[in-house]
Amino acid sequence: MPLSHLVNHQIRLAARPVGLPQPSDWNHTSEPVAEPADGAVLVKTLALSLDPAMRGWMNEGKSYIAPVGLGEVMRAGGVGQVMASRNDRFKPGDWVSGGLGVQEYALVGAEALQRNALFPIDLASGSLTQWLNVLGMPGMTAYFGLMDIGQPQPGETLVVSGAAGAVGQTVGQLARIKGCRVVGIAGGQAKCDWVVQQLGFDACIDYKASTTAVRDGLKQHCPDGVDIYFDNVGGEILDTVLTRIRRRARIVICGAISQYNSTTAVQGPKNYLSLLVNRARMEGMVVFDYADRYPLAVRELAGYLQDGRMQSREDVVQGLQQFPQALLKLFNGENFGKLVLEVAKP
Amino acid sequence: MPLSHLVNHQIRLAARPVGLPQPSDWNHTSEPVAEPADGAVLVKTLALSLDPAMRGWMNEGKSYIAPVGLGEVMRAGGVGQVMASRNDRFKPGDWVSGGLGVQEYALVGAEALQRNALFPIDLASGSLTQWLNVLGMPGMTAYFGLMDIGQPQPGETLVVSGAAGAVGQTVGQLARIKGCRVVGIAGGQAKCDWVVQQLGFDACIDYKASTTAVRDGLKQHCPDGVDIYFDNVGGEILDTVLTRIRRRARIVICGAISQYNSTTAVQGPKNYLSLLVNRARMEGMVVFDYADRYPLAVRELAGYLQDGRMQSREDVVQGLQQFPQALLKLFNGENFGKLVLEVAKP
Repeated sequence: MPLSHLVNHQIRLAARPVGLPQPSDWNHTSEPVAEPADGAVLVKTLALSLDPAMRGWMNEGKSYIAPVGLGEVMRAGGVGQVMASRNDRFKPGDWVSGGLGVQEYALVGAEALQRNALFPIDLASGSLTQWLNVLGMPGMTAYFGLMDIGQPQPGETLVVSGAAGAVGQTVGQLARIKGCRVVGIAGGQAKCDWVVQQLGFDACIDYKASTTAVRDGLKQHCPDGVDIYFDNVGGEILDTVLTRIRRRARIVICGAISQYNSTTAVQGPKNYLSLLVNRARMEGMVVFDYADRYPLAVRELAGYLQDGRMQSREDVVQGLQQFPQALLKLFNGENFGKLVLEVAKP
Repeated sequence: MPLSHLVNHQIRLAARPVGLPQPSDWNHTSEPVAEPADGAVLVKTLALSLDPAMRGWMNEGKSYIAPVGLGEVMRAGGVGQVMASRNDRFKPGDWVSGGLGVQEYALVGAEALQRNALFPIDLASGSLTQWLNVLGMPGMTAYFGLMDIGQPQPGETLVVSGAAGAVGQTVGQLARIKGCRVVGIAGGQAKCDWVVQQLGFDACIDYKASTTAVRDGLKQHCPDGVDIYFDNVGGEILDTVLTRIRRRARIVICGAISQYNSTTAVQGPKNYLSLLVNRARMEGMVVFDYADRYPLAVRELAGYLQDGRMQSREDVVQGLQQFPQALLKLFNGENFGKLVLEVAKP
């Protein structure tokens, strides 16, 4: 069947959301699939990564990356298989990962390929969905945020919020491997049980259990305070952890999912002067800065998956058209594990 | 005249203030001066350092240092002269600096002397009031906060708030010496003129000039953004600077004078996610951690005073009884230079 007989369904940004994205913020479109031009490849999307950061890309204004333009296919990282190639580095059948967008077929041009927008993946190192999780951006974020900014030392106590989420699950397991005591914060008993019983965290605090659950849990599980706090959520939880940090603590600012849909000003950490009292630091990180070292991190993490020291969990929603609804699971904390949208079977 | 004929006037903490300290929060007391016991020295207070940190010491609760107890002589660093000594390391007539308290005469016991609560000062390196300023705690705070936390590189842009204050004046001059462009933030045209014309800052923003003065001034004077922000004030100014930081910026959290008398929750920096976007860090410091290296910093700073590369300004209020009123000058920004209480002439 010629490629032009295939239809590419796409989801495009129709409007900039106010608060939580609404169905009306998206356009569902379709167009024929085009043959790749010289130097380009055509990829069939198999699975897409749904990430909290997507909410930021939908806003206007300067950030660490340009916003998605109105009318454009929504930006998304994904894994897929090369269907047609006019580029020497790729051939049909290759498994690849990269910036595919929320669509069934992605044409990746010569220029983007030169920027390494697409790279081959090895399914011996991890499954397709693990390549969107531990071996993908969340894993890289966890690895470099923990190792470079958190700088864990054996015997230290690490707390990670969003503990059952994509980044959190790898942060906690990696910190254990590096010799830390690890306490997670997650929403609901099921997630807490999983990170303790399956992932081997030392403890996990269910922040939904009561209004004082985080404060009480930190007192109980971190009686000597917190050396590293890996923050994926911001808001009240960040403020509470700030009251329990130790001297020379490091707070890794990876995200602030509690604030991304806020229609009022972001809630600043009112306990930030704890940084002064405790000679502590709070530092932001953006994973793209570490691209040169991704292969090293992938190799190390794949090793842990293979020798059983690390596990992963993906929460898979099926069907491209489910994208708008699926994305909301991130913001109400419904996802259990790395949220993935399966677009097609291999 | 035997020492016991001398009267020691003292100012003691009578109540924990709510908001700005009131006259009723203090007790003025007097008692006869006692002979030093074995190993102790008696010091005549000449001048006391009045510092924003004092407000924190008046609060109950854990901080980097124990609170001043109710009924105790208010804690203060000062300079003075040894009147009587039963310690081999000190003799009458020695010029000294240390924890004297808000009183005319300080008995410093053997145990405190072993903790180096008192040390000799050399008036060839700086005047008595300079030993409370550039060569004292504010200077040490400026030196280690800038050099160890700020880590200035030639060509970088540094912004410092409280620019005409005790810490700010030294931070700015030292950063200039280290090759930075330096922009101050201060209250009022007179202070701004002084730091630019006398201290050689590249520019200074009068935050009182208008509600948009800081934002406008940073745009004008830091068109490429801010590499180092040395924060003495917190509040709105911190939030505004956060919108203008460059990649890998360092924010030194030295103090937050705008918040110390707040009777509501401290205002957290609502723009803290700028740390993430800009891969920047915010780090607190407490000067006491650097005590081992004070002599090195004093030598370097004294050199700059002597070769004329650095100047200092002290705002001297006279009379021990003026302490309660004088302290308030810090919080309404009335002091112009390092605030010093002169208790007696040498």
